[in-house]
Amino acid sequence: MADTNSVEALIHALRRLPGVGVKSASRMAFHLLQHDRAGASSLSRALQHAVESVRHCERCHTFTEAELCSTCQDERRDASKLCVVETPADQSALERTLAYKGLYFVLMGKISPLDGIGPKDIGLKKLFDRVTDGVVSEVILATNFTAEGEATAHVIAQGLKDRGVKITRLARGVPIGSELEYVDLGTIAHALLDRR
Amino acid sequence: MADTNSVEALIHALRRLPGVGVKSASRMAFHLLQHDRAGASSLSRALQHAVESVRHCERCHTFTEAELCSTCQDERRDASKLCVVETPADQSALERTLAYKGLYFVLMGKISPLDGIGPKDIGLKKLFDRVTDGVVSEVILATNFTAEGEATAHVIAQGLKDRGVKITRLARGVPIGSELEYVDLGTIAHALLDRR
Repeated sequence: MADTNSVEALIHALRRLPGVGVKSASRMAFHLLQHDRAGASSLSRALQHAVESVRHCERCHTFTEAELCSTCQDERRDASKLCVVETPADQSALERTLAYKGLYFVLMGKISPLDGIGPKDIGLKKLFDRVTDGVVSEVILATNFTAEGEATAHVIAQGLKDRGVKITRLARGVPIGSELEYVDLGTIAHALLDRR
Repeated sequence: MADTNSVEALIHALRRLPGVGVKSASRMAFHLLQHDRAGASSLSRALQHAVESVRHCERCHTFTEAELCSTCQDERRDASKLCVVETPADQSALERTLAYKGLYFVLMGKISPLDGIGPKDIGLKKLFDRVTDGVVSEVILATNFTAEGEATAHVIAQGLKDRGVKITRLARGVPIGSELEYVDLGTIAHALLDRR
């Protein structure tokens, strides 16, 4: 694309975004340079600022700019409940339900042997130490219902066995608004078993 | 996602990339901050550098860092042929064929009334002036074979009528390696008409 090294370098840098190949990167570079240079500048600044200021919360590992994130600092939250999620986006989804008032532990990943990610990489030791602090009485495993998410939940449940805390998992069942005909059989089987 | 304004600002800035919605932007931000901060920094620098240094070639409008792009500066190119393309990516595709030794005029867009882009926005006046400089003898219209690309080619052909230059269009036909059964009927009809 053109003869300029700056454009080539920009395309190369854009390809490091997940899900962006060489054609998308070229299209993005062309769009930014031709139609939205202000957008390119603001993206440049946002990236630099985030890299410099975003760190992990000392208690729950989520992204924050302070030592503790606002959720961990909030004294009105119920510290006896600890919800374990994979990512800040999952935490955000739970928060939007307004149905949970406890605290979180954000793994910032999941156990995935194929990608070389084991229990150490997602801070399980820190999680286990936290759970045995005498305050937490229930750990809610809210990892995703994927193979890796289930494996991660299993490893955490094993590690917390016999530590005197209640361990629960998000309920599996039929999503609201769906028709049984189109729901997969494993979900229906779980919904049957967990009927109430 | 998390409680940090920097992360929110980054997601917001990433959404200005074409084809990126809020979910993709969140995933990109998480990936960069959690797994590839070096990539985030290099993308930030590449954006800033490109915005500062990339400009348009004075003669052909493509992206360049100098006054004239390397193609326009190359004295071995055949200045009697002028190929009109929509974007630097299209120019690059033609260059990779090694089948063309003339010069280019890059419209940096196409006529698209729905988006409010008319002849002025793609520099047609400059193109018409260039064509009547006495050097150009053939204009090859290589805009895309889409509705807007065809309309753009039509407008240019009309504007260059009676100026004493030959006007040609890239041949339409059956792509190499394809089976007739799967080629659309319009293409086959064109291939029949233009048979040789």
